[in-house]
Amino acid sequence: MSSGDARNSALHAASAELRSRHAEILDANAIDMREAGERGLSAAMLDRLMLDESRIEAMAAGLEAIAGLPDPLGRVMAEWQRPNGLNIQRVAVPLGVIGIIYESRPNVTADAAGLCVKSGNAVILRGGSESFHSSRAIHACLVSGLEKAGLPADCVQMVPTTDRAAVGYLLSSMAHWVDVVVPRGGKNLIRRVQEEARVPVIGHLEGICHVYLHEAADAAMAAEIAVNAKMRRTGICGAAETLLVDRGAAARLLPGVLTALRNAGCEIRGDSDVVEFFPEAKQASEDDWGTEYLDAILSVRVVDDIDAAIQHISEYGSGHTECIVTNDDGAAGKFFRNVDSAILLQNASTQFADGGEFGMGAEIGIATGRIHARGPVGAEQLTSYKYVVRGSGQTRP
Amino acid sequence: MSSGDARNSALHAASAELRSRHAEILDANAIDMREAGERGLSAAMLDRLMLDESRIEAMAAGLEAIAGLPDPLGRVMAEWQRPNGLNIQRVAVPLGVIGIIYESRPNVTADAAGLCVKSGNAVILRGGSESFHSSRAIHACLVSGLEKAGLPADCVQMVPTTDRAAVGYLLSSMAHWVDVVVPRGGKNLIRRVQEEARVPVIGHLEGICHVYLHEAADAAMAAEIAVNAKMRRTGICGAAETLLVDRGAAARLLPGVLTALRNAGCEIRGDSDVVEFFPEAKQASEDDWGTEYLDAILSVRVVDDIDAAIQHISEYGSGHTECIVTNDDGAAGKFFRNVDSAILLQNASTQFADGGEFGMGAEIGIATGRIHARGPVGAEQLTSYKYVVRGSGQTRP
Repeated sequence: MSSGDARNSALHAASAELRSRHAEILDANAIDMREAGERGLSAAMLDRLMLDESRIEAMAAGLEAIAGLPDPLGRVMAEWQRPNGLNIQRVAVPLGVIGIIYESRPNVTADAAGLCVKSGNAVILRGGSESFHSSRAIHACLVSGLEKAGLPADCVQMVPTTDRAAVGYLLSSMAHWVDVVVPRGGKNLIRRVQEEARVPVIGHLEGICHVYLHEAADAAMAAEIAVNAKMRRTGICGAAETLLVDRGAAARLLPGVLTALRNAGCEIRGDSDVVEFFPEAKQASEDDWGTEYLDAILSVRVVDDIDAAIQHISEYGSGHTECIVTNDDGAAGKFFRNVDSAILLQNASTQFADGGEFGMGAEIGIATGRIHARGPVGAEQLTSYKYVVRGSGQTRP
Repeated sequence: MSSGDARNSALHAASAELRSRHAEILDANAIDMREAGERGLSAAMLDRLMLDESRIEAMAAGLEAIAGLPDPLGRVMAEWQRPNGLNIQRVAVPLGVIGIIYESRPNVTADAAGLCVKSGNAVILRGGSESFHSSRAIHACLVSGLEKAGLPADCVQMVPTTDRAAVGYLLSSMAHWVDVVVPRGGKNLIRRVQEEARVPVIGHLEGICHVYLHEAADAAMAAEIAVNAKMRRTGICGAAETLLVDRGAAARLLPGVLTALRNAGCEIRGDSDVVEFFPEAKQASEDDWGTEYLDAILSVRVVDDIDAAIQHISEYGSGHTECIVTNDDGAAGKFFRNVDSAILLQNASTQFADGGEFGMGAEIGIATGRIHARGPVGAEQLTSYKYVVRGSGQTRP
């Protein structure tokens, strides 16, 4: 197994390469941007694809931050002694070979590869075809970093074609060599991976995140959290999509909260109770409760009580992130016990659903599946474990 | 979420039901045994299928032992504070709905359901068709236990048909409702599950387990461990299938170790070096190194050194359990770092690869996959987690 020092040197060397090769990377990105423009990609997609000096610097700094994290490997996660004298340790080891399938965000190439190098895994990267040239230039920096640290260049591989059939091959025919696939992207990508995968998947579904204003919510805090959860960035999976308000507090809370949201540029789609308190609101349809807008739109519903709020989230949520705003810790405890999502918050914005904000340094994404890892997937979540048992000649009776 | 007390009462009540309904269970088992006899099942299969008073008592005692384990749910697995004041806890929760597909061992019905009840999961049991009547009688005891504890009877369900198509349905069409499938059985079952599953699988492959006699092994300990690892029970996945011996210690160790094995009734299949030291040995073929005999047969090979032993295990092993016999802790450390198996032991029998022997109370099996759980799968391994974040109005800048 590689040493933590060697893996960290590889990350520092790759970071330095990103900085010194910035002109090459920008040239490669210019090719991607020109082709994407010709294909008529949306402004939002072009923005995700675009690299500039500051974005390259952010990738380089990101790799250094990952290098600075504690080594996730070799940790003794648990240790105990058996009555027969056997000493048992559970020790963290790499997962093995990880396939990462993502869309056209060149920075994911650096972030995902960095986390895999940190955690001693080999990674096969398959980014969106629109970012192929950019990703290849970034990949070259990571390979150079591995070589400078004396680690095998093959630890970070990139699928050398934009052919869509390669994704199917990675998901099925390579099952013998790939230990886990992590898809990072929109619904269509996730659906394809779930349909075709013959390998284990650490799933990342959509984020239909809720902010629930309990009757014991502070009005000013409710408005601040609602605006931040929805509007800080509307396109991330931790952005709130639905606001629920207790009936008993609707008159006290709704006008202020919805006015603040409206003033921040948010469209409100409410049920008929909401429209009564806030006539500017459009009427919500049944579809709104299950929609991940990823835009400046919020569905708003009045619920009878906390049980109805929990029921709504159970029916329409995606198991990602939900927030309760309340000064009643008992109500928060009930919410925490009964809502089955990866991340539950009391009195804090859903936009904290992020590996960096959790103190993990970086993340590949927010897992919404239930096995292996749930919530932010950082270097520690990219590990497995083995048992190391030390005896003195014990045999089993 | 159910309380730990309610789940433990359900287990105690189910245990009492097993004891009080023993006559019904034996009658049901008699039907299975008669049908199996008519179909000409092997003596080994009939023995697995057969229940008697002592086997029913063992199931009842097993459920009580599971009730006595610490509650795996609600554990705060990690807790930390962020600079912005957010307090983050990682809290254990049930996995959800678990499908367990197993062969005709009626006791697995009680063990697997017991572990799932303990860990707050709902379980769908699908046992082998030969044990259908026995499993149904045992299942009725578990359902009665749940009802007496005021828990939903549907927490433990049994596929109500022996139709093989039901397995395919459970593995694919029910993907929306089943969170994970745990197959427990032989190669054909595992292969079918891996081919058809559209749900996550906690895999249990075969156990091609190795005992490696390092040159610093004690001769008496080497013989005791080799005999126990191979012969204590030959049909379990933790039984040794291959013995590796350092060339420099072959003359000192092999005659005594192989004589002890022969005297215990074991057939020896060796490479030509082994045959030289122990002329009774049959000549091993290439196929022997990759065979899980599950019988009183052992393949034996002389290796040049520890690196060659690690290489052999990497090539032919199944990632289950391996043992090094040595008094050189440095050599054991090298073996632990470089062999990639779920369980590695120094100076102890491979037959300790068992949840009960690890102190987990019971197990569903030994996972050989790399994601979620590896090694013995007990109640703790049947949990997921959620993050609970407590704030005081924090918004993300």
